[in-house]
Amino acid sequence: MRWLRRSWAGLLYQRHQQHHRRFLLTTNRESDGEREQQQHYKWSSPGSRAEQVLYAGFWAGGLTLGFYWLTNRNHNVLLEEQVSDEEEQEALARLWHMTLREELPTYKNDVVEQHNCPEKGIWVTYGLGVYDVTDFVENHPGGDKILMAAGSAIDPFWAIYQQHNTLEVLELLEGFRIGNLEGELVPSVDDELGSPWSQEPQRHALLKPASKRPFNAEPPIGLLAEQFYTPNDLFYVRNHLPVPVISPEDYELEIEGGEKKKTLSLEGIKDLPKYSVTAAIMCGGNRRSEMTKVKAVKGLSWGAGAVGNAKWSGARLCDVLKQLGVQPDETKHVIFEGADLDPTSHPYGASIPLAKALDPRGDVILAYEMNDEPLSRDHGYPIRVIVPGTVGARNVKWLTRIVVADRESDSHWQQNDYKGFSPSTDWDTVDFSKSDAIQAMPVTSAICTPQPGSRVKIDDDEGHIAVRGYAWSGGGRKIVRVDLSNDEGLSWHVAELEQEDIPDGRHYGWSLWTARLPVSEAQRKAGDVEIWAKAVDSAYNVQPEKFEHIWNLRGVLANAYHKVKVKIV
Amino acid sequence: MRWLRRSWAGLLYQRHQQHHRRFLLTTNRESDGEREQQQHYKWSSPGSRAEQVLYAGFWAGGLTLGFYWLTNRNHNVLLEEQVSDEEEQEALARLWHMTLREELPTYKNDVVEQHNCPEKGIWVTYGLGVYDVTDFVENHPGGDKILMAAGSAIDPFWAIYQQHNTLEVLELLEGFRIGNLEGELVPSVDDELGSPWSQEPQRHALLKPASKRPFNAEPPIGLLAEQFYTPNDLFYVRNHLPVPVISPEDYELEIEGGEKKKTLSLEGIKDLPKYSVTAAIMCGGNRRSEMTKVKAVKGLSWGAGAVGNAKWSGARLCDVLKQLGVQPDETKHVIFEGADLDPTSHPYGASIPLAKALDPRGDVILAYEMNDEPLSRDHGYPIRVIVPGTVGARNVKWLTRIVVADRESDSHWQQNDYKGFSPSTDWDTVDFSKSDAIQAMPVTSAICTPQPGSRVKIDDDEGHIAVRGYAWSGGGRKIVRVDLSNDEGLSWHVAELEQEDIPDGRHYGWSLWTARLPVSEAQRKAGDVEIWAKAVDSAYNVQPEKFEHIWNLRGVLANAYHKVKVKIV
Repeated sequence: MRWLRRSWAGLLYQRHQQHHRRFLLTTNRESDGEREQQQHYKWSSPGSRAEQVLYAGFWAGGLTLGFYWLTNRNHNVLLEEQVSDEEEQEALARLWHMTLREELPTYKNDVVEQHNCPEKGIWVTYGLGVYDVTDFVENHPGGDKILMAAGSAIDPFWAIYQQHNTLEVLELLEGFRIGNLEGELVPSVDDELGSPWSQEPQRHALLKPASKRPFNAEPPIGLLAEQFYTPNDLFYVRNHLPVPVISPEDYELEIEGGEKKKTLSLEGIKDLPKYSVTAAIMCGGNRRSEMTKVKAVKGLSWGAGAVGNAKWSGARLCDVLKQLGVQPDETKHVIFEGADLDPTSHPYGASIPLAKALDPRGDVILAYEMNDEPLSRDHGYPIRVIVPGTVGARNVKWLTRIVVADRESDSHWQQNDYKGFSPSTDWDTVDFSKSDAIQAMPVTSAICTPQPGSRVKIDDDEGHIAVRGYAWSGGGRKIVRVDLSNDEGLSWHVAELEQEDIPDGRHYGWSLWTARLPVSEAQRKAGDVEIWAKAVDSAYNVQPEKFEHIWNLRGVLANAYHKVKVKIV
Repeated sequence: MRWLRRSWAGLLYQRHQQHHRRFLLTTNRESDGEREQQQHYKWSSPGSRAEQVLYAGFWAGGLTLGFYWLTNRNHNVLLEEQVSDEEEQEALARLWHMTLREELPTYKNDVVEQHNCPEKGIWVTYGLGVYDVTDFVENHPGGDKILMAAGSAIDPFWAIYQQHNTLEVLELLEGFRIGNLEGELVPSVDDELGSPWSQEPQRHALLKPASKRPFNAEPPIGLLAEQFYTPNDLFYVRNHLPVPVISPEDYELEIEGGEKKKTLSLEGIKDLPKYSVTAAIMCGGNRRSEMTKVKAVKGLSWGAGAVGNAKWSGARLCDVLKQLGVQPDETKHVIFEGADLDPTSHPYGASIPLAKALDPRGDVILAYEMNDEPLSRDHGYPIRVIVPGTVGARNVKWLTRIVVADRESDSHWQQNDYKGFSPSTDWDTVDFSKSDAIQAMPVTSAICTPQPGSRVKIDDDEGHIAVRGYAWSGGGRKIVRVDLSNDEGLSWHVAELEQEDIPDGRHYGWSLWTARLPVSEAQRKAGDVEIWAKAVDSAYNVQPEKFEHIWNLRGVLANAYHKVKVKIV
């Protein structure tokens, strides 16, 4: 797969060495449910001050509106709380690096390039801003990755590592501004061959993006519990990098199992015995948008829809590893690499314990089918590893390499992301090396209907409202009960479960549930009801009550009771 | 082991058919830390009314005092809350069946014996009371087991099924009183050969009984976290029935694995390869005394000490089953029976899924050693099955029989006990068949020092207090973090863990932890601090915050935050 790794990332890297003054700004417009990427705005050499202010105002307005629209689409109920002053500020801050600051000097690119080490000072450019980040380097949360951009542009990196696009980071950066970059600024790299984003697949119009590049989107929560198997095109998408283009003929999977190595073609994988497993896949950040209301966290603002349930089919990883002579060893790990590459040509990566991979009851699958159809490109075509019961991040898509190793994957996503921390751990005190990478996920549930803020009719003479949702626990633990309350826990009502008849320990699918909750005369008069859901798994673990005491700075593992306020009509 | 099953239980059953007027009343006195069982009170034929009142007063006083003493020893901090009017009432209610009610007729035994079926009415005797329970039979929580006593005495049954010794049950029974039983009343069966309780082992003076017959006791919580391996004689004891007497020469273990059968002697088991596993065993009712403060539950009033951690050694069950040709089948179960028998000669029994038994990483052991010493009688001599990560009740002691079966054990303890329910399920609505038997236990933790109500010194100039305890999760899930707070969750402090370096999924031992909590000037002045502990396991499951929303009528799975109030001095 070396050809792939060299393709866009290598190209891009060369190109931004040559043309690193370029930056892109893209907006999207939706018409008749179809999304068109357009409005690649061309910012030529900086014009007059008045012109800049005009441009800036135009963009600020557009971005702010766009923000409202996005937030409205994603979390329509939370609209008023979420579109805050801070978000307006953030939208404006996104223009700073595109704005000439006349009080500062202008530098040529070859001058910037010389400042590429601590001794000479470390400068970077972003848009037309020049920044001296020498003193910041050692405090960079991403470690010395920042040095990859020393003396050059950070634009292509930030296009990938979208966590930088926050007011806090933009303010920090602008504080290091020392000048303006001389030269011509051209539009987006999108319209040129080799752009990492130029070959993204088409997506279903109902998928609500939490971010567009990389594409991360969830289906409307109201649809989620309608079907036991989530339709493929409505299944949430969590991409960390651009979607690679892989032709089935060229596809190869390298497997290193200790001393032996092996390469499998797509046909070779399909020739192995075919197994199917029903498994829900859930993003580690599912329901983050609820946790962040307690206190801001960093990460995509997922609702409760970053989960889906599917039947996955393919070859069993344990069979492949056993054929390769891999022996059980509980100190070892299995590292997965995808064909999706970051700007330095490093692939997305993650790992799981070898014990999980070798356990026939672990049901780890090299999947080529999702609900009896070939995987779509967004879900890992042609091969994705399915690690049932385990956080989505370990279910590596576009799988190109498997290595049995003495250590976990050293990827960013295994080492410095997808880990839990105490509520009192902040970005000043966090030490990712001290925390365990998330593997099995904790028990959780969500109310899918009614939706927050909706007007609910009482459905019969006895005064009940109908509630429906999903529940799931990691590690193959079956859901044994879902309790609902509409009186703040004074009374609980046990839901009816819809689930597969699969033994505990291997129960990787989700459970859908339905309950009919009585509404008291007092609640009917008041008009407002808050519904609570909590699930119990086969180890009798329960969800925690609220987010305050499980809050963590990355906003993962957001499994507190799901609470939904509705109006009774 | 048929000889055993016939021994005391058969004897007792015959005897109470013949002499079912007998009952026993025993008190205990402690002197110099040694417990002597004495004071077998002889109640001859009922005397004058004055005499009865005198006797009743004597016993009422004694029992009430005894209650205070027991409660004080077990839960010294909770003393004031726990010794309620209800408990005084309960102590008095225990005398009703020993009291002649002169307004009622007197019946001979042969008259009672005729009322042994629904058509003739169902009468039972208890002490010198005669009761018509015909209308109650179908509401009996224990099902039709009550019919075993039809036309005869319930005394020997209630001596075993101690859940009847509550005010509620005693009131219910006295409501069915129709008369007095004629005949001589003799003292306890204890001093006679064949009493089920006559051969109980000696126990360590520091074990605090939650009940004496059967013996159930926990060590002082303050000692529990002092050693990683709990000393054998301080390890909590949870007996459901009298301790059987087993000679190593006669011991036999019957194993039925489908079509093949096998009998192993003690030496035969010791000849198999020897494995050791560190595993904490925890009673399903550990910390029940905290849950019952929310609302009364039924069950022994355990503190946080119904748990211990030991190194268990013996043969692996998976080896024995594989030798017998048992094949993996996830629909099957392994039933265990003990040599401890109920009054109808039925053994204590429980079962686990076959998948757990066959999994080499499940580490199920036919243990003959506990911390490198032979098992003591209280812990299952000569053989106890250790099912690591699984609720104590499945770790069957005095193991005599193993059966691979299509169904779970049909024992009371598998079917009608050790299950979880919604907080709104009460004894009128409970349906045990609808709930899953507890297997793996949920994550929990407890503060062992300081103890509730204790006066704690600030230990250094920086104003810290030292806190220590244990944490554990079932299913082999490692504890990854323990958080402590002394400001109601506003801030959390991560504890230092002491645990074995064993891979997750097979981490069956507990973790001890230590933390140093800062005490603010305000807290120092106020003098009172409440410390909270919560643990997180490798599936990132956390303890629920409080007992209100996990309350269940049997008081099991009491794993809310542990909260301890102390005084700062």
